[in-house]
Amino acid sequence: MYITQGLHRAVQQQPDAVATVFGARRTTFVEQRDRVSRVAGGLRQVGVHPGDRVAYLGLNSDRYYEYYFAVPWADAVVNPVNIRWAAAEIAYALEDSQTSALMVDDAFLPLVDQICARYRGLETLIYVGDGPAPGGMASYEDLASAGPAIPDARRSGEDVAGLFYTGGTTGFPKGVMLSHRNLLTSVLGMQAAGVFPRTSGPTLHVAPMFHLAAVSELISCAVSGRTQVILPAFDPLTVLEVVDRDRVGALRLIPVMLQLLIDHPRFDEFDLSCVSSVGYGGSPIASALLERATAKLPGAAFVQVFGQTELSPVTSVLGPDDHASPRRTSLMRSAGRAAPHAEIRIVDDRGTEVPAGTVGEVVVRGGHVMFGYWNNPTETAFALRSGWLHTGDAGFLDSEGYLFIVDRLKDVIITGGENVFSTEVENALGTHPAVAACAVIGIPDQQWGERVYAVVMLRGGAAVTAEELRNHTKGFLAGYKCPRSVDFVDALPLSAAGKVLKRELRSRYTG
Amino acid sequence: MYITQGLHRAVQQQPDAVATVFGARRTTFVEQRDRVSRVAGGLRQVGVHPGDRVAYLGLNSDRYYEYYFAVPWADAVVNPVNIRWAAAEIAYALEDSQTSALMVDDAFLPLVDQICARYRGLETLIYVGDGPAPGGMASYEDLASAGPAIPDARRSGEDVAGLFYTGGTTGFPKGVMLSHRNLLTSVLGMQAAGVFPRTSGPTLHVAPMFHLAAVSELISCAVSGRTQVILPAFDPLTVLEVVDRDRVGALRLIPVMLQLLIDHPRFDEFDLSCVSSVGYGGSPIASALLERATAKLPGAAFVQVFGQTELSPVTSVLGPDDHASPRRTSLMRSAGRAAPHAEIRIVDDRGTEVPAGTVGEVVVRGGHVMFGYWNNPTETAFALRSGWLHTGDAGFLDSEGYLFIVDRLKDVIITGGENVFSTEVENALGTHPAVAACAVIGIPDQQWGERVYAVVMLRGGAAVTAEELRNHTKGFLAGYKCPRSVDFVDALPLSAAGKVLKRELRSRYTG
Repeated sequence: MYITQGLHRAVQQQPDAVATVFGARRTTFVEQRDRVSRVAGGLRQVGVHPGDRVAYLGLNSDRYYEYYFAVPWADAVVNPVNIRWAAAEIAYALEDSQTSALMVDDAFLPLVDQICARYRGLETLIYVGDGPAPGGMASYEDLASAGPAIPDARRSGEDVAGLFYTGGTTGFPKGVMLSHRNLLTSVLGMQAAGVFPRTSGPTLHVAPMFHLAAVSELISCAVSGRTQVILPAFDPLTVLEVVDRDRVGALRLIPVMLQLLIDHPRFDEFDLSCVSSVGYGGSPIASALLERATAKLPGAAFVQVFGQTELSPVTSVLGPDDHASPRRTSLMRSAGRAAPHAEIRIVDDRGTEVPAGTVGEVVVRGGHVMFGYWNNPTETAFALRSGWLHTGDAGFLDSEGYLFIVDRLKDVIITGGENVFSTEVENALGTHPAVAACAVIGIPDQQWGERVYAVVMLRGGAAVTAEELRNHTKGFLAGYKCPRSVDFVDALPLSAAGKVLKRELRSRYTG
Repeated sequence: MYITQGLHRAVQQQPDAVATVFGARRTTFVEQRDRVSRVAGGLRQVGVHPGDRVAYLGLNSDRYYEYYFAVPWADAVVNPVNIRWAAAEIAYALEDSQTSALMVDDAFLPLVDQICARYRGLETLIYVGDGPAPGGMASYEDLASAGPAIPDARRSGEDVAGLFYTGGTTGFPKGVMLSHRNLLTSVLGMQAAGVFPRTSGPTLHVAPMFHLAAVSELISCAVSGRTQVILPAFDPLTVLEVVDRDRVGALRLIPVMLQLLIDHPRFDEFDLSCVSSVGYGGSPIASALLERATAKLPGAAFVQVFGQTELSPVTSVLGPDDHASPRRTSLMRSAGRAAPHAEIRIVDDRGTEVPAGTVGEVVVRGGHVMFGYWNNPTETAFALRSGWLHTGDAGFLDSEGYLFIVDRLKDVIITGGENVFSTEVENALGTHPAVAACAVIGIPDQQWGERVYAVVMLRGGAAVTAEELRNHTKGFLAGYKCPRSVDFVDALPLSAAGKVLKRELRSRYTG
């Protein structure tokens, strides 16, 4: 199995169907295949060798889509760059992966000098844009129009397809090595689970294409011969206009995007009856949001996918039936059930399976589990011990196999021998009207081992005492779970992905 | 990925749902899992070691289903035996694979002595039945009820799951080695293609369970948590009764079974409105049969799967939409289009891809392509040359990727530099009312290279001359395709699977 396979299949079955729509540009599958084969030949000419890592730093576009096919076609390895990173983080990932070629678009051209100053290993720079390439850079469009078409290397099976850097909340980013088989297994499993609509209508790409969820979506669209409408970035009004104009069938979003969309003041001006599938991931959906979204998109089946980069990325699915179930209010807190390609277990700290309803670490097996972390045998051995991918998530399965995530394992607080899930305390604090955001951590305590410590950011103009907040949480939580200390801050330290850096908080309050 | 994965998943998600129905016996997924884990432990006790081959010779049953899970659970390899074979053929396959254990049911007990006389390597015999085990044999039910439950070995990925013997028409059977990943790839690809119904209702198993199509069906049912109703063998009246009684949702048949079913004089006595999916394979369906079947099963979506044992077994799918298409009369001659997990090409004898519409050899790539033939590196290298599985089928793709098989490659006749497909001549001869069956071969000819030779079996009481038949075919075929010689015979030599042994005919008429 290989990620170019879907493109070959689409060309064979519907060569003249539209593969991508980007602004005014429409490209058919056969045109795409021809461009991809020339870009691949061009990559060889500008010095990319088999096995080389080729990075991409840019906003979403149809050229980004081609990149994911052209690089393996040229027998090389993709390395998409997180666009939220600063130059130093980008240089770190490029150096760690010894990447030799970088494609960059207009939006990120200004970063190139800073990146090259920090990492001197980039031998090839390729400008992806409409104008002439800046000095010292090759032009992507020159490759796509005039590169010598070469046959697909059909890099496949256990060959590494890409390095996908992940991290942010836990130190230096790690390069997750995924094979072609890993990626295709996740795609086929999702298709088997009914994640992707069978009916027509294009899929809208609006989440960042460096993210693995988008990669898996675009592979799936090629496999299914489905048109993709690509937007450079998320803007709710533009999404409403494009969905209506291009009669988009499938939306793939994170819940906050969905909320911005359906609560948009001009929502009712557009005809979104074409939307038959809404897929979301990244977090569960609030029940109230789901109810509003269902009312505003009555023709849509909702589906949640859950996983992580190490799982290529999907391992469980909360399907359309779950979203329409009478039990949906409670099911919406679940991350779904094991997809057809995955096995999920909950284990204790000795690796023994625990019964349904008991919290432990979520571990996963299947053809979608990563090879390992690039150049990091220690972390790889730790993550893959006993043949299972240890996700680092604390959670439980109910008696019907629904997975509920309660916390990151490292954020669980052990106080007086009892487990306290930081998320549970955060949820209780978050119900207080004065609280804008908060993070709960455990800090060392001579008597209790750890003690529950809350770091709270208040809403503008609000005032509340630590004692009032403690009393508020007592209405929701057992006494030992309520924060023993509360600190008020103006801001919480966030990762590039917007997650609170609890590691940093712990060192701040422990140190 | 591993074939026991679906069983674990079904137990996690719906432990008390019915896994199998066999006669009066109903077994839930959790009961099945417990039986499988004890049979696996029992296999160890009776001498089965990791990697050993364990054969099964029997009619369909729920125990046959368990066998496919218990053997890999015990870290061993399945080797299901073709029930149409004679003792000598069975002994050949067991010896070739150095199989050490054989499970056998009441129907095939009488063959055991003959098999053991020819192959002395069977160390363990296991009786699969309700009564006491004959002397010298272990009892399957003793293992299932009292064996020590062991954890699943989770034999997976590239580990060999089974040896599946194929052949018949081309010399000695060859053992196709399929990995767990091969089998699961085909299953996920079929599910992604919508081969399996999403709606409820059990699947009926009535085709022989030694066949790979049945294996892939039962893996899929476990993955989907679907109930399977199992019948020991095909009998149309019993099928009608059981479909009605158990409200069967999915039928999996070969076209001749479908015909016997819908043309049964008592068809109208039964309520088959529960049937929502009819899958068939083994051959295309006659348009007239499809029209009758559609009329009699109006609630059913029809789907054809095509492949071969070397492809685990499915590589293309003719889907429900194709069966409902206005073009269906012509599409029904197709073997469908590449499934999401497969890439199909047509190549000439130098391995170069040929354009749409041109006949060549069908070659296939994907995660479902076999490892190779057991103990047969020469045949393996020949079949897998250039990284593609060479199917031995001659066919073409149309401009929308529909695959049409025109002949077995070795049966194509080359006369005066022109290709003649034996099936085309056979179809023309078959339209003559006097012809009951026929086979067309090429035999060496000094002038033309080969010449078209027809071997014909007439209907009882019919009479026709060779000249009359030749003239009849001229109404359908170009002159060089019409048979130059016709021989009349009382019977054609058939393989165990009912296919004409053209190899034998060629040697008879050439020798």
